Amino acid sequence: MKEIRKDIFTGQWVVFNTDLKERMVNFWLKREFNVPKLATCSFCEGKENETPPETLAYRRSGTIPNGPGWWIRTFKNKDSALIPDEELDRRPVGIYDMVTGYGVQEIIVETPEHRTQLEELPFNQVRDVLWSFKERISSLKANKGFKYVLVFKNFGLGTFGSMEHSHSQILATPIMPRKIKDELIQAKLYYSDKERCIFCDVIKQEIRQKERVIYETEHFVVIAPYASNSPYEMFIFPRVHSALYEDITPTLANDLTDTLIITLKKLSKVLSAPPYTLVIHTAPNFVPRPGYWGTVQYDYHWHIEISPRLFRLSGLEWGTGFFFNPIMPEEASIELKNISV
Amino acid sequence: MKEIRKDIFTGQWVVFNTDLKERMVNFWLKREFNVPKLATCSFCEGKENETPPETLAYRRSGTIPNGPGWWIRTFKNKDSALIPDEELDRRPVGIYDMVTGYGVQEIIVETPEHRTQLEELPFNQVRDVLWSFKERISSLKANKGFKYVLVFKNFGLGTFGSMEHSHSQILATPIMPRKIKDELIQAKLYYSDKERCIFCDVIKQEIRQKERVIYETEHFVVIAPYASNSPYEMFIFPRVHSALYEDITPTLANDLTDTLIITLKKLSKVLSAPPYTLVIHTAPNFVPRPGYWGTVQYDYHWHIEISPRLFRLSGLEWGTGFFFNPIMPEEASIELKNISV
Repeated sequence: MKEIRKDIFTGQWVVFNTDLKERMVNFWLKREFNVPKLATCSFCEGKENETPPETLAYRRSGTIPNGPGWWIRTFKNKDSALIPDEELDRRPVGIYDMVTGYGVQEIIVETPEHRTQLEELPFNQVRDVLWSFKERISSLKANKGFKYVLVFKNFGLGTFGSMEHSHSQILATPIMPRKIKDELIQAKLYYSDKERCIFCDVIKQEIRQKERVIYETEHFVVIAPYASNSPYEMFIFPRVHSALYEDITPTLANDLTDTLIITLKKLSKVLSAPPYTLVIHTAPNFVPRPGYWGTVQYDYHWHIEISPRLFRLSGLEWGTGFFFNPIMPEEASIELKNISV
Repeated sequence: MKEIRKDIFTGQWVVFNTDLKERMVNFWLKREFNVPKLATCSFCEGKENETPPETLAYRRSGTIPNGPGWWIRTFKNKDSALIPDEELDRRPVGIYDMVTGYGVQEIIVETPEHRTQLEELPFNQVRDVLWSFKERISSLKANKGFKYVLVFKNFGLGTFGSMEHSHSQILATPIMPRKIKDELIQAKLYYSDKERCIFCDVIKQEIRQKERVIYETEHFVVIAPYASNSPYEMFIFPRVHSALYEDITPTLANDLTDTLIITLKKLSKVLSAPPYTLVIHTAPNFVPRPGYWGTVQYDYHWHIEISPRLFRLSGLEWGTGFFFNPIMPEEASIELKNISV
């Protein structure tokens, strides 16, 4: 059963996917969960028949779909929280509100090799991973039933469902994620007041001050955010204003590849390969509506957020929505900047 | 260094407390952290000199403050994220916003006994714990520099700073926690539309439907929320409308004691003593302002939220603000209702 429900008390949405219940219970009650190792990994080359059919693959000429010969391959997540064959319906349930579990969740396998992590891959391979994100976002955004398409990556979280083989995921949802909505609202408010992009202003101030800048390239800048939500958090911003990740050019993709490899290597070295999450925040699907989305292409600025997840949220964080962070971003940025990789 | 910074992109606040940095680094990098056991626990009776002076204690007559003879004892958290001797100041920092780390964080030791958990304590002891919450909330709310006073409890999270000895905490902050603000906004919107409390309406619907009711007493009802943010989440609501936890009477406190003991025992039995967080959501300090807080006593309804925390947030949750839950509250509530304790 898959269903999206609105929390009537906070306005936030919760995605229910009961297909994962047994695995969660085994993970917790029986403390049983084995991350698939090399021998049993369905993401490896040669195991294509163990995954749903590919939605995109970069493959050597002459090889056939859903067989070996690929270097990047995307397909539906077997444990998808949302499914495309569900009818999209939004309805009240007594006093409450729900949306059917309509959506798409895909896996992007970043390499045919089981053992290599994203930042250890060759330059061209990482560039193609970034390019595949662009292609899948564009393709999923063509479906106007979706409000948002999110690329994300979990590394080393060690929860039920974890896979060792390097991969990212993409989720297309019929509702706007809360965090994106928050960003859109702040950006819109700022823009209506000043007619400037809030992200552009932040980037300019950070580059001028240098206090929280970790790494710079011609087209990108990596910053420890002023109010980092987690220790050693890093945001990658394109210098030039752009609302949509999927608008990146080959030139930008090349430069982003360098930026991402260096950034992830720095993180891995400073914190000894910590668990982290990576998300790409791009503007939502452009659904023209009077007023609200009118300036999003001017007020929103795509970026990548990399957040080490060193510990579980405490009751304080869970109960308040504050985050607690024991390291100032100014200090984290010095460590991250100075470490050579 | 303690400082509260506003996330310019989301509007959320982050609390920095660098006193915990070394402990976090040891916890993560060296995988070193020992939860203090019986022999080294500073919360035990007889170790009063190892804690800051008590701010409240229920003690046998003839015993002296900060010595043995107490059954409940509260004092400043040594690792407090916020401190009262900081000057309260709100200021811009370039484009950003911050508040000084002004506030209070206290420990409430729930028993002199090291080994007993909250739900295993005698009835009178639990009732006195609930009463001490009321007393400390009232006392801290007298300081008009605080916008909010939160009681919370972490159990079994196993992060740095964890203590085995049964205790709760209380945090008084100069900013309104995001989650409370969300609840206040939803409650206010509903009330302005209907002139009814949203919580009262939810409680009535749930009691009528019975689908998600876990336990009922004369004055309280325990519900698995329709959009449970975590698996097996439980909310305890007073049946009669009341905005303030600190207004509970001895009659209500007695009934809440029974309700809380049963609820925690059910959770412990169904999930085999899972890590959980417990928070008391009471209305904020009444700072009279034109319009905004005008109806909070009618539109807000205090309650207790108990959320098992079985795994780390994934990139999906962290990156979107959605929550993912593999068990429907209707199913969780049957398990929790039917288990005998």
